[in-house]
This record gives sequence, structure tokens and C-alpha cells, in this order.
Amino acid sequence: MPGSKKVVPREKPLVLLRRRGSLDFRGMIQLRVGIIGVTGYTGNELLRLLLPHAGVKINYVTSHSFAGEPLATVHPHFRGITDLRCSSFSLDEAVEKTDLVFSALPHGQSMDVVPQLYEAGLKVIDLSADFRLLDHSLYREWYGKDHQAVHLLGEAVYGLPELYREEIKGAALVANPGCYPTSVILGLAPLAARGLPEHETLVVDSKSGTSGAGKVPSQALHFSECTENFRAYKVARHQHTPEMEQELSKLRGKEFVFTFVPHLVPMIRGILSTMYLKIETDLPEEKIREIYAEFYEGEKFVRLLPPAMFPETGNVYGSNYCDLALQWDRRTGRLIILSALDNLVKGAAGQAVQNMNLMLGLPEEQGLEAIPLRP
Amino acid sequence: MPGSKKVVPREKPLVLLRRRGSLDFRGMIQLRVGIIGVTGYTGNELLRLLLPHAGVKINYVTSHSFAGEPLATVHPHFRGITDLRCSSFSLDEAVEKTDLVFSALPHGQSMDVVPQLYEAGLKVIDLSADFRLLDHSLYREWYGKDHQAVHLLGEAVYGLPELYREEIKGAALVANPGCYPTSVILGLAPLAARGLPEHETLVVDSKSGTSGAGKVPSQALHFSECTENFRAYKVARHQHTPEMEQELSKLRGKEFVFTFVPHLVPMIRGILSTMYLKIETDLPEEKIREIYAEFYEGEKFVRLLPPAMFPETGNVYGSNYCDLALQWDRRTGRLIILSALDNLVKGAAGQAVQNMNLMLGLPEEQGLEAIPLRP
Amino acid sequence: MPGSKKVVPREKPLVLLRRRGSLDFRGMIQLRVGIIGVTGYTGNELLRLLLPHAGVKINYVTSHSFAGEPLATVHPHFRGITDLRCSSFSLDEAVEKTDLVFSALPHGQSMDVVPQLYEAGLKVIDLSADFRLLDHSLYREWYGKDHQAVHLLGEAVYGLPELYREEIKGAALVANPGCYPTSVILGLAPLAARGLPEHETLVVDSKSGTSGAGKVPSQALHFSECTENFRAYKVARHQHTPEMEQELSKLRGKEFVFTFVPHLVPMIRGILSTMYLKIETDLPEEKIREIYAEFYEGEKFVRLLPPAMFPETGNVYGSNYCDLALQWDRRTGRLIILSALDNLVKGAAGQAVQNMNLMLGLPEEQGLEAIPLRP
Amino acid sequence: MPGSKKVVPREKPLVLLRRRGSLDFRGMIQLRVGIIGVTGYTGNELLRLLLPHAGVKINYVTSHSFAGEPLATVHPHFRGITDLRCSSFSLDEAVEKTDLVFSALPHGQSMDVVPQLYEAGLKVIDLSADFRLLDHSLYREWYGKDHQAVHLLGEAVYGLPELYREEIKGAALVANPGCYPTSVILGLAPLAARGLPEHETLVVDSKSGTSGAGKVPSQALHFSECTENFRAYKVARHQHTPEMEQELSKLRGKEFVFTFVPHLVPMIRGILSTMYLKIETDLPEEKIREIYAEFYEGEKFVRLLPPAMFPETGNVYGSNYCDLALQWDRRTGRLIILSALDNLVKGAAGQAVQNMNLMLGLPEEQGLEAIPLRP
Repeated sequence: MPGSKKVVPREKPLVLLRRRGSLDFRGMIQLRVGIIGVTGYTGNELLRLLLPHAGVKINYVTSHSFAGEPLATVHPHFRGITDLRCSSFSLDEAVEKTDLVFSALPHGQSMDVVPQLYEAGLKVIDLSADFRLLDHSLYREWYGKDHQAVHLLGEAVYGLPELYREEIKGAALVANPGCYPTSVILGLAPLAARGLPEHETLVVDSKSGTSGAGKVPSQALHFSECTENFRAYKVARHQHTPEMEQELSKLRGKEFVFTFVPHLVPMIRGILSTMYLKIETDLPEEKIREIYAEFYEGEKFVRLLPPAMFPETGNVYGSNYCDLALQWDRRTGRLIILSALDNLVKGAAGQAVQNMNLMLGLPEEQGLEAIPLRP
Repeated sequence: MPGSKKVVPREKPLVLLRRRGSLDFRGMIQLRVGIIGVTGYTGNELLRLLLPHAGVKINYVTSHSFAGEPLATVHPHFRGITDLRCSSFSLDEAVEKTDLVFSALPHGQSMDVVPQLYEAGLKVIDLSADFRLLDHSLYREWYGKDHQAVHLLGEAVYGLPELYREEIKGAALVANPGCYPTSVILGLAPLAARGLPEHETLVVDSKSGTSGAGKVPSQALHFSECTENFRAYKVARHQHTPEMEQELSKLRGKEFVFTFVPHLVPMIRGILSTMYLKIETDLPEEKIREIYAEFYEGEKFVRLLPPAMFPETGNVYGSNYCDLALQWDRRTGRLIILSALDNLVKGAAGQAVQNMNLMLGLPEEQGLEAIPLRP
Repeated sequence: MPGSKKVVPREKPLVLLRRRGSLDFRGMIQLRVGIIGVTGYTGNELLRLLLPHAGVKINYVTSHSFAGEPLATVHPHFRGITDLRCSSFSLDEAVEKTDLVFSALPHGQSMDVVPQLYEAGLKVIDLSADFRLLDHSLYREWYGKDHQAVHLLGEAVYGLPELYREEIKGAALVANPGCYPTSVILGLAPLAARGLPEHETLVVDSKSGTSGAGKVPSQALHFSECTENFRAYKVARHQHTPEMEQELSKLRGKEFVFTFVPHLVPMIRGILSTMYLKIETDLPEEKIREIYAEFYEGEKFVRLLPPAMFPETGNVYGSNYCDLALQWDRRTGRLIILSALDNLVKGAAGQAVQNMNLMLGLPEEQGLEAIPLRP
Repeated sequence: MPGSKKVVPREKPLVLLRRRGSLDFRGMIQLRVGIIGVTGYTGNELLRLLLPHAGVKINYVTSHSFAGEPLATVHPHFRGITDLRCSSFSLDEAVEKTDLVFSALPHGQSMDVVPQLYEAGLKVIDLSADFRLLDHSLYREWYGKDHQAVHLLGEAVYGLPELYREEIKGAALVANPGCYPTSVILGLAPLAARGLPEHETLVVDSKSGTSGAGKVPSQALHFSECTENFRAYKVARHQHTPEMEQELSKLRGKEFVFTFVPHLVPMIRGILSTMYLKIETDLPEEKIREIYAEFYEGEKFVRLLPPAMFPETGNVYGSNYCDLALQWDRRTGRLIILSALDNLVKGAAGQAVQNMNLMLGLPEEQGLEAIPLRP
């Protein structure tokens, strides 16, 4: 298992954190968490996962546009489930009320808020893209704006527990991976960590449900335009590309460049990535499967499917699983890797909760036991 | 709250039941449950809800066609989640391995198996229609076959906890309500219990997702035929009609006959029922809302929406909630009641788990805390 | 067949109209038509039907926001099919370039433009609601604004050819019916024309696809909110209610008031209306079916289904058909009428083309021969 | 334009064919066509396109399971549109009643019937895969059975008009291309005809709606399993692979082998193929676009989209268009080609009608003028 990233642990001792926690009705200590930017789909999904989570208490949620409103006004399906109200963001309040904060703000906004939270001593999990890239010039190139907190880029741990579990445990700032990157990196990591891919042969063709595009209405996501329709978008220019290349380069120990094309599927949840590549090796084919099995041994949330079985997004719906399959195309000597996950869970909020559990010393799977909702 | 149904409690003492239970890793006693007929959608949903349920342990599941196979072969999304294997049905094994059994067999088959389980002293929750109707001649009329266990019709408690909570606690055999009946009875019960509806004015127009029609492929449920399509079916002759009329008659204390038309919506989960009726009363309109609020006070799973807010099936997706709204059509003097629920949860497996909790002395909401999955 | 509506024919002689037409490549005279407000779904559907129509030539299309742009910029699927460009609206240009104009503007805007076109001597088909209601106080009540062209309310012919064919032939201004009203009026007209319905027993429960709500993005129509979801909206207060009541009152010869509730189905096209009522009669049941068969005899676009067959929106998809079925609920003495149509075709643009054909002396079915697109 | 395929024209003179035709009401000669196997989706789509086709008359349709039944029993949306009844297949009747026959039988069945029709002197368009492969050993390998009419494999013209227009005009037997092959070959033909692709770099990732899988219900196509789900299938082993390789090899003049993976999209109609490859050339990038523009100049049904615009299946829905786009991934030196078509139209029945028009001397576009149905 790789994991060479150096992280200087923050000074806030866990014992203090725990002291800040509150007792729940069962006499258990619950750590207090907050969600900055709770009105979008990522914030909504964090609420869904965290409200029933026995180890933490959501103590603070913010929304610019719904400040003062109960959560059930923003997300009507929470009616009768929680009395939480949205606050305007206040650093003092965040510090006073929480031990750990999730930022579910859009990229570009997160980098304004996260540094404040971090400097104030809170543990932070940022679900935006703002702290994933180590190289701020890449950020400018792919996100179209200058980074406002360059000094923190090296501080953040990339929050993919299957790769960086130990670093995450000690991290004060976690950059939660993107949805496409999670599906692609988990699909390629076992090979990359061994330097196997001929990366210049790699083509990644991903397909995502619509929730990855967020909650803001637009023509392309209008029901009448989107259903009974299929299309590619941001062809070879999606902003998640450098994030994937960065992480796979780290694993491989040298450059990793490939073609990535995302597509929009008329369904709410799910990403399926189909990855095509050749391997620098004369390893027997079965060996590759062993490499995967070994790499993910003991990983609860990665399921390697048996031969001739392929992932379906429906099989991970609403859950934190990532399903993987391998298939050789013997005619062309190409390896095909398929991965499926729920973009809002393992691709966003679920992974963030997994990271939170690690950072707070809770069982890694806590709150993530939900079985895929199928049908 | 109504509840005049007489139920003779079974003799099996709870203390004995508990002794049969097994210790889980936290040292808690877990009661042992079984599912007869686990391959359909109802069985699948029971698994989803019961596997993470801390109070019980699934100890026995049966399937005729998948006997000997692991559950993950039947329902691939359970891969890595459970090692359970399907058994052929055996009464001895059921008795030995379980304290309570769910029958998820289709109607017509359940009445062959449930009596055996019941006579053998097991607590039974039957999710089919076989023990819902008290009058076997109605069964023959609407289900097209003779009932094989007429003597048990009076033994079964109708498993709608909001109406029959106390009876369910003491019941040995619970007839779990149908999906449409749950949505309609919850919508009308507060009025019926006061004798208010002019029942001959009542029209119920229900709309259901496709999972209610089960897992067996058919032309009408073939994706290419079913999506981008909407239609009525079994117009004024759906077999759930007498079940609704029976229960509403009981509540009202006299005959209750109405028109019921179901429709098929191109979505997986959800029932929305729109109920139209006039009221035998000169009560002020606001009084009706009070009657509902009072009737469902303290009911966790029934959410009465505020004025001008209407139920959406998406707001109860994957959860055990039933959302209700009231709207007067002042121009016609008609009351419109809308209810929404997830047909596989509150309309089937979730309600069955709620009943199980009551029968086993567990907290009624245990295992049903899932927040609606939206989006 | 009814049709008592008095219409003063306009003075523009058809022969003159025809002289204005242009010769197509087959030497046929083509009349010139225009579409005001071509960017919405109704305008788009008019284009789809009229571009291949051999009897007319689209000579003028307007859009405020896309003035100067080719149609393929507004509606990319028209690429390579037409070179038409959008103009800003100009009355002079409309008069110069067209013989007949469709207004596909939203209600409230149409009443500003239609009078100008009408006064200038053009034949006009208005697809908005602005000229459907005869009583301007109803317009204010249901549409929330004062009518700006009250003097024209009596001039417009209600464009339902199955009821007002002769009036439409001579009309200069046709108010094209709403989508819900077409489905409901066609379902009830044979009874209403005989004074049969006990209108106070009538409940109409309609279900519509999303395209009826138009092209403008909104939260409720956002794909991730709308798919896998079903809900009612504007419960008992939809603005199409007075239009239906007006037309059915005219047919019946006295007041006609009922309850109407629309619902949103996660599909693009289609309306299914389920109508429940009792009949003031001791006619034998089969007689009702004869009344329908006779009323719609020779009507190409109304298909009365045989007993036990029910309409599906998929069976009229993309076509100008309206399918009807009748079913008695003998237990309650209630008649159930079901109708299905494509809201953009028979519910809007297709019916408008049918009206145009009548107004221009073309074969009524021309351009409307498309067979339903199924699957 | 390529087209080296040698075809020996059949002896049946067109003048004789025309004499067999019947007069329609406009005094035009209509040629008589038949459809063998009319009950599936391909047969259904042929009906949709041919019934309104002014140049031909459907005179004979066969169905094994619906023999004697009116078409409206098989496909209820044809009610009121045609009085055609299904016949059992009889060679004599086919010869007597038709000039040209479509075989819409499944592969494996078509090769039993097509030779009879062909030997009897009828023109035949076979929509199955049975006459597409020139090498019967490939047929056995990919379709799992021995070919029963090997002698005809060289007789059939591959019915892709954009490549083989002249050969099709003179053909007596046309093998109508598969849906995936049409989308892929049209996407790659301009390059292949110039020998440009480094074929071993080619990866084709295709996504199809469900109608391509036919009308027979199955678990995988059951609505509740298929909607809100996305998956790959037949990964690197789809039977259309050798057909694409054969045709691209012919164009390129040497071997052409690549990786092909199809996926199932939860929508009815549409195929989008994303093709990734490198080019053996130092041509400037803009030159590639010119090559495509030139290759498809004058082709009505192929629309080359401008830079930065990408195909959507919704933009070709129900129509015979194939939309193409080109995009360079400059970072990797890879060319990405995207194509979209409606699998039932340009991918099956529409292309068959296009072929029929060519074979019968009718205008190539006749009956195919339908504008894409969007939304």
C-alpha cells in the first residue's frame, strides 16, 4: 500500500477534541460537526449520512441564501427528522460549536473559507476541488481562476482512505476527492502502484448521473432535455483530469497522462468508468487479478467482482461501495477495467464521512453501513 | 385512536423468545428471524432493512429457485455484505432457527406455508394478501381462488401500527397491509374513525411506481414499453379494493364502498394516492386539519404537511414515512387528500419491520431510521 | 355534433389568400405561415410539424432573445433541416410575409400581439390561453392579470375541430385549446352534449409529462428532482379549470362545475386524464358506448378503444391522436372515462395545425399523418 | 467515395417491378413491399416508416405468433391506422404480393427464409446479422452457430448508402448494417478510406438505449432493474465487432482490429459512440475536419457538427440522421470522434428504407423526412 505523502500532524490533541464532544442520550460521547454550505446536493447527502450517525452530532449548518430557515425548508424530505436551522457563516460560531467542519461550498468559494477554519484550529474536510491539486498553476489552468490559499495546498491530505488511510487519521485538512477521480483512481491504483500501465495507451470513458452536476437548474439538466437523451460533455477538458493524473503519477512515481471523456446519463446517481489500457509486462493475465485482490484485501468499500461479472451503478446505489471488474480483450491485448460507485456517496459525502471517521478515531465504517438501495 | 379488534395473544412467552435469541458482538441479545421467499422485491427489501438491524439476526432465508445459492447470486448488490445462503423451505428448520418469520411469498402461495409456521408456534408476518381479508368469499371473488386456511382469517391482526398498535404487540400472526391500502387507509382513517366521509362520493386515484408489480419480467414492465409511458390498469377492479373497504368500514362502523383506479408511473418506487370526497358535516374547514393532527400526534412515520404543501414520492424515497396533505376545493365543496409513501418500505417491508419491532418488544422505529434518499 | 357558436367570418377572401401563396417545386401553391415566439416547446413542435407540411411554407419566425440567429442555434436538432432565421417581431413584416400566423407566446404576452395581427387582416391561431375564456373576469381570477383585449374575446373560435369544425373553417382568430382541456373535453363532450353528466359528481384527475411545463429550467423540473418522483401540483386551482368548465357548460347548456387536479409524471410527453362521474339517466350501459361511437364517427384523430382496453400515453406519442376508453364501476354506479394524448401535438401544436388546415381549406389531416412513435 | 464491392445485378428488370406495382389514389405507382417478422421492434419501426411512404404499399406482413391477427393487436398504437393483418409466412404469397421484402427476423432465423425469397426473384433487405459477414467462420465464432446459406454471403451488398450507394441501387440482396456498426463505421470511414487510423490505438466505447435489445422481456430489461442504472455488457465480446472490423478493413485496405465495449443507457432510443484513436500522419488538425466535410458532402443524413458542439442522441430521436463531431485531445495526441444516431432508424429500419428507396429507384430520402422528435 502506498502512502508516502508527508503530513505534519496538527497540534490539536484528540483528547481535547473529545472533551468538546457532547453526551448523547445513550451516554456516548458525540463529537460535534458542522456543514458549511448545506443547501446543495453534497450538503444534503452529508445530512442524510450524518444525522443518524451515532458518533457525531451535527451542531452547525450554514447557508447563505437560507440563513435562519429550518433545514426542512431547504430540503423538504427532512421534515420531521431534524430541527436544525441554517446559519449565516460565522467563524466564531463554527469554532465554538464544532470540532470538525465539512465544507460543501462550490470550488472557488471553498478556498476563501477553509483557510479560516483551518487556522482557527478546526479539523476540516473540503468537498470542493480547491485543495486537491498540489500545483496552483494547474488550478488556474483547469478552474480558470487564481488560487487564494496556495500555502495550504501542501497541507491537505488527499482523502482517499484506501490509499492514504494513515495520513488521513492524522490530518487536519482533508481534500475530499472528486467523484470521477475516486472511480478512476480506485480502478487504476493497483496497477499504478506497481508502475504497470502504459499510461499513454490509457483511455477513460466515464458516465455519470445528473446529481454530480448539482442542484442548480439549467437547460441541459431540464428534465425534458435530459431524459431520453445521452451525450458527452467537456470532451477531453474536464477539470477532474489533472486531479486524476496527479494522484496516479504519485502512485506510479512518474508522469501519468491520459484521455478522459465524461458523459451524462439520464439517471440521478451513479458513475461508471470504463478504462482501457495496455500493460508494460509479460505477467500472466490471472496475475493482474491477484494484484487487485491483494491491493484491496480487507477494504470494506471496494468490491472486486468475479470474472464475467460487471459493475452496475444500480448495485451501489445510495451506498459507499465501489465495484470493480477486470476484463482482458485478448484480441487487442488490452485490459479493460470497469468501476461503479454512487457519485454522491463514495464519490462525495460518503467518502467524506469515511474520512471523518478516520480523523476522529471512530470506526471507519460507522454511518456507512447502508445497503445499496435496489431496486 | 381506534383498535377494537379482538386478538387472543399467543402463548409463546416473550421471555422464551428472548432466550432463543443470540448474543451479538456488542453483547446485545438478537432475536432470530427468517424470510420465506427471499428472491422477490419484498424479500430483497426485508434484507436491506433487517441486515443492519441491531435487534435481530437474519438466520434463515428460503428460495425455491435459488436453494443452496448465496444471497449475492440472487441479489448481486448484497455481495460482500452477507454470507447468507438460500435454503429450501423446511418447517423444522424454520422452527429451529427462528423466533419470527416473514412470509414474502406471493399471494396464493403464502396461505399454504403460513399456517404451518403459525401452528408450529412461530410468530409470523405475512406480506402477501392472503390473511388480510376477513371474508373468504371476498378472497375468492377478487383473487380468483378458494382460500386454503379460512380458519386463520380471524386470527390475523391487520398490521397497520398507526391503527392497531396494541393488537400487533400481542399478535402471533400479522397480515401486513398492501401498498395501496396503506396509502389510502392512512389518508382516510382520521375521517373514517369519526364517521365523516360520505363514502359514496369517494374516488381514489392512485399512482404507483413499477416495483409494486414485482420482479418478474413482462411486456408491460419491459423498459422500452414502460418508460415515457403512463397508463391506468385494473380500472375499478384492483384486488386491493376490498381490503381498503374492509378496513375503512371497520373504522367507520358501517359500510364503506368507493371507486379505486390504480395507474403505473415510470419510476421504481413510490405511491401517490389522490382521494376526493365530501364530508357529512358542517364542521369548519380548519377543524378537519385539527382532526388529522390529533389523530397522528406522536406518530413518527406519518407526516402531515402544512397547508399549500403537497406530498411528493421523492420525499419519502427509501424511507418508512407516509406524507399526507389536505386541500379543500371550495368551488365544489370537496375535500382532497393526498398521501405519498414508498411502496416497498411503508407499503411493504418497512411496515413489516415496524410490526416485527412491536411484536418483539423492540423500539418501534428501530432499523427504520433511514432518511429519505433524495435526490 | 354541437357547434352553436356564432362567428362572424372575416372579410379576407380565401382566393386572395391563395394568391399570396407561393409555388413549391412541385408546382403546388403553398400558403405562407409564420410563428411568433418560436423558441419554446410549442414553437419547436410547430416547426417539426410544419416544415415537412406540403401545403404551407414557414416564411417568418420570431424570437425576442434569438433575433438574427438561425433556428439551429435555438433548437440544435434542426441543424441541416432548415435555414430559417429568427426575426424580431415586426407587424409589417408579419403582414408582408405571411397569410396565417401562429402565436406561440406565453399567456399574458399573446394578448399584446394577437390583436395587432388580427386587425392587420391576418388569420391567427393563438396557442396561449389568452383568447380561450369568454369572460374576462375569469381571466383575471385565474391568470392574475387584467385582459388587454377584451373586445376580441367574443371573436375567437375555440379551436377544437371535433366540436367546432365549421366555425373554425370560417374563423380569422382561433383560440387553440389547452392541453388538459383537450383531453378532458374530448372525454366528456359526448355526454355533455346530451346533458347527461351529474356534473357535481365529476372528478378529473389528470397526469401530464413535463414538456407541458415548458422549456424554462426550474427547480421542480430539474432532472435530479423530477425523475423517480411523482406529485400533484396546483391542486384544485389549475388555470385550465375555467376553460374546461366553460366549454362543457356550453355543450351541456347549463352550468358545469367540477374538481380538477393535475399531476406531474416523470416523462416528457403525454397526458392521461381519468374522469369519474355519475350519469343522470337510466340508459343501459352499452348505450353510453354507442353515444361515444356515434359522436366521434369519422373523426380521424379520436380513437375509441374497445372494452377492457385502456389508453396509454405511449400509444399516442408524437401523434395527433386522442385515445378514449370507458369503464363502468358497477359497484358504485360510476362511469370512468380515460383519455390519452400527446400534450405537444393534439394538446397544442398538432391541434393548431389541424385548425390551420381547416382555416386554409387544406385537407384536415395534412401534415398530421405521423404514426405514434413507439417504442 | 469508396465502393469497390463487385455486385452482379439481378436480372429482374425494374420495368417489370414497376408493372407489378399498384396505383395509389393520386394515380402514382406504388411498389408493393412485405415485412417478414413484423412483431418485433424492427418490424414495428418499418411499419411506422413505410405506412405513410407515398412510393410503396405494405402488402404483406408476417408473424408466426400473431398469424391472422390485425396489426393493431400486435402493436396497439396502430389502431385506426391500418387494417393489415399478419399472415403466416408463405413463399408463394410473398412472391405473389410483393416486389421487395424486408426480413426483420432475428439472426439465425433470417438465414432460413432469405435464401428462399432471393431465389424466388424478390428483392430482399435483411435487417438481421445473417448476411453481413463475408466469412462464415466469423459467423460461427461470434454467433455460435453454423451459417446455413454460405453461398449467399458474397451476394449481399452491405447496406450503408453513404459507402455503397451505387452497389445498393443494383442489389437484389442487401444486408442492412447493425446499429452499433452504423454509428462506428460512419464515424471512422473518412479516416479509414485514407488509411489514416493507427487501428491498434482505437477504442470504441458505445452506449445504447434499450430498444436495441428488442421487445422480449428479460430481467436485465425489466423497468425496475434498468432505470436509474447503467452498465456495460458483452465487454469486448459483442457480436457486432467483426462486422465493424470487416467493413473498416475493406475501407482501409488492410487489417483493422480494435476494442469495442457496449453499454446500456436507461432510455429507449439512441446510440452514442465515443471513438478514441491516433492517426498515422503529420497532417495539421484542421485537415481532418476537411476530410470529414468532404467525405460527407451532400449526404443528407450525416450531419458534421461544428467545433465544440457534440452529438446528443436526443437531437436525432426518431429520425434518420447520424450526427458526428471531432475533438482533438492535444495533451495526448488523440483524436476523439463522437457519433449519435437513433438505433431503430438510421441504425435499423430507417436505413433499410433508405436502401429500399435506392433499390427501387425512388428518391433516397422519401419517407425519411421526419424531423427529430425533441423534446
